[in-house]
Amino acid sequence: MKIYFDCMPCFICQALEAARLVTDDEIVHEQVVRYVLKLAADLDMSQPPPAIGQQIHHLIRKLVGNEDPYRESKKRFNHLALEICRDLEDTIASSEDPLETAIRLAIAGNIIDLGVKTSIAESDIAKIITDCLTADFDKSAIEQFKNAVESAKSILYLTDNAGEIVFDRFLIEQLPPDKVTVVVRGKPVINDATMEDAEFAGLTELVEVIDNGSDAPGTILELCSEEFKRRFEQFDLIISKGQGNYETLSDKQKDIFFILKAKCPMIARNLGCEVGEMIFKRSNHTTIFQKG
Amino acid sequence: MKIYFDCMPCFICQALEAARLVTDDEIVHEQVVRYVLKLAADLDMSQPPPAIGQQIHHLIRKLVGNEDPYRESKKRFNHLALEICRDLEDTIASSEDPLETAIRLAIAGNIIDLGVKTSIAESDIAKIITDCLTADFDKSAIEQFKNAVESAKSILYLTDNAGEIVFDRFLIEQLPPDKVTVVVRGKPVINDATMEDAEFAGLTELVEVIDNGSDAPGTILELCSEEFKRRFEQFDLIISKGQGNYETLSDKQKDIFFILKAKCPMIARNLGCEVGEMIFKRSNHTTIFQKG
Repeated sequence: MKIYFDCMPCFICQALEAARLVTDDEIVHEQVVRYVLKLAADLDMSQPPPAIGQQIHHLIRKLVGNEDPYRESKKRFNHLALEICRDLEDTIASSEDPLETAIRLAIAGNIIDLGVKTSIAESDIAKIITDCLTADFDKSAIEQFKNAVESAKSILYLTDNAGEIVFDRFLIEQLPPDKVTVVVRGKPVINDATMEDAEFAGLTELVEVIDNGSDAPGTILELCSEEFKRRFEQFDLIISKGQGNYETLSDKQKDIFFILKAKCPMIARNLGCEVGEMIFKRSNHTTIFQKG
Repeated sequence: MKIYFDCMPCFICQALEAARLVTDDEIVHEQVVRYVLKLAADLDMSQPPPAIGQQIHHLIRKLVGNEDPYRESKKRFNHLALEICRDLEDTIASSEDPLETAIRLAIAGNIIDLGVKTSIAESDIAKIITDCLTADFDKSAIEQFKNAVESAKSILYLTDNAGEIVFDRFLIEQLPPDKVTVVVRGKPVINDATMEDAEFAGLTELVEVIDNGSDAPGTILELCSEEFKRRFEQFDLIISKGQGNYETLSDKQKDIFFILKAKCPMIARNLGCEVGEMIFKRSNHTTIFQKG
């Protein structure tokens, strides 16, 4: 997915918000805003939006002299997610179709995404989970996904954020462990999941977990490690979580199941859906599950 | 009022919206967006926001080769306002305090501002007018204003937009005609009122109407004609309509009554009010009327 003109104001907003979150120093805020304005003015718009996010967060980390300013946020959301997921174990175990329930909860994890917010009301979390568990769901989509999992020799599971990765465990547990490799970012960027978060979620005990060698908030293959690129090509089924991975992989000729919530008008336009919709979409560009 | 960091994304949004309104040519959209990004990157933030609006609209007019791309919008809103105001004549005539009612309707005119939107629901207009006519109102503010009008030798009435200027007629009719001079912009910019609109509203038959010699969407004195600057200094009471005039005159040491709706978070922060509040504020920085 390329950058739209409408992404420009959003880059500035996000950069300003991020700068304010990591420091109260207004000089840093100004440096960040002016840097992003300059960057955007000459931008190659054929890049995916996370390429800009990567550069913005490089600068912010450099200016504040902190390699992982979201570390505490990520920890907080990991712990919160663990608490929520403990209560959901019975839901999975007792459900008629645990795989379907696990997909629904993987979407819930992407929606709950605390990001950099400090808190989320318990009632909001409960509502999101109920919505995801009860939404209309195209049963044939589940069948397609089951068939793809069964026939795949190897499955690459691209995670998105800290906290959300705890929810992903439900879905990963439903997949054949010997086929699955989970991927996290190579270095911290925003609240994206890294190896530390995969360990916290217990994924390293279940399946192979690798990192992609990059600190882009998405999967920009050209910027990933040689090892990751090689494996990305080898795997015959990919499960991709979240907006950043969608924005960077939506044009790839691979069999990818995208699981995300459409969080902004531009991705919604790209997906042909409404903002806020839950998306479970195969990369052949046929949406096989979509719920408003 | 100076530019805040948070104004930057808004400049980009406004520029993109304006470019899209006047042409479907995506090359122009891109030129406008990139120009504004460059402009903002090196911006002197001590300027008032309308200084940027002025430059954005210079460029847009130049790129589309049209000196007044909002002409039809302005005409449409003038006619709509005339229709609405015909129905309000009785309201003024029969009201206990016609001056107070006229001030309330002058605020309504600023709120209804169609801007560049193509239409507004009749029910929305009716609600805005009812809200403005019934809102809590500090009676002492009216008294202050009446005293200021009575003791002033000369009153300068700075108008804001086309359409809105038709509503201003009610308030102008309540002022001593020999004291009042109405001011419009010197050249078209966005949907701001020019001499043509003052004529349409019938103001030229009532009082002296002059233009400020500038095409900024506000009153940037340094960019106004020498004649206007001289008169601005001579007049001892100023009535200023709308956000653009507030943003450019809020720091001036003159006796100014500002009449506007706070339309964005930054002006609300500057005024110490909520977005959407109706403001009737004297320039000594004491808000004498404010309603949520």
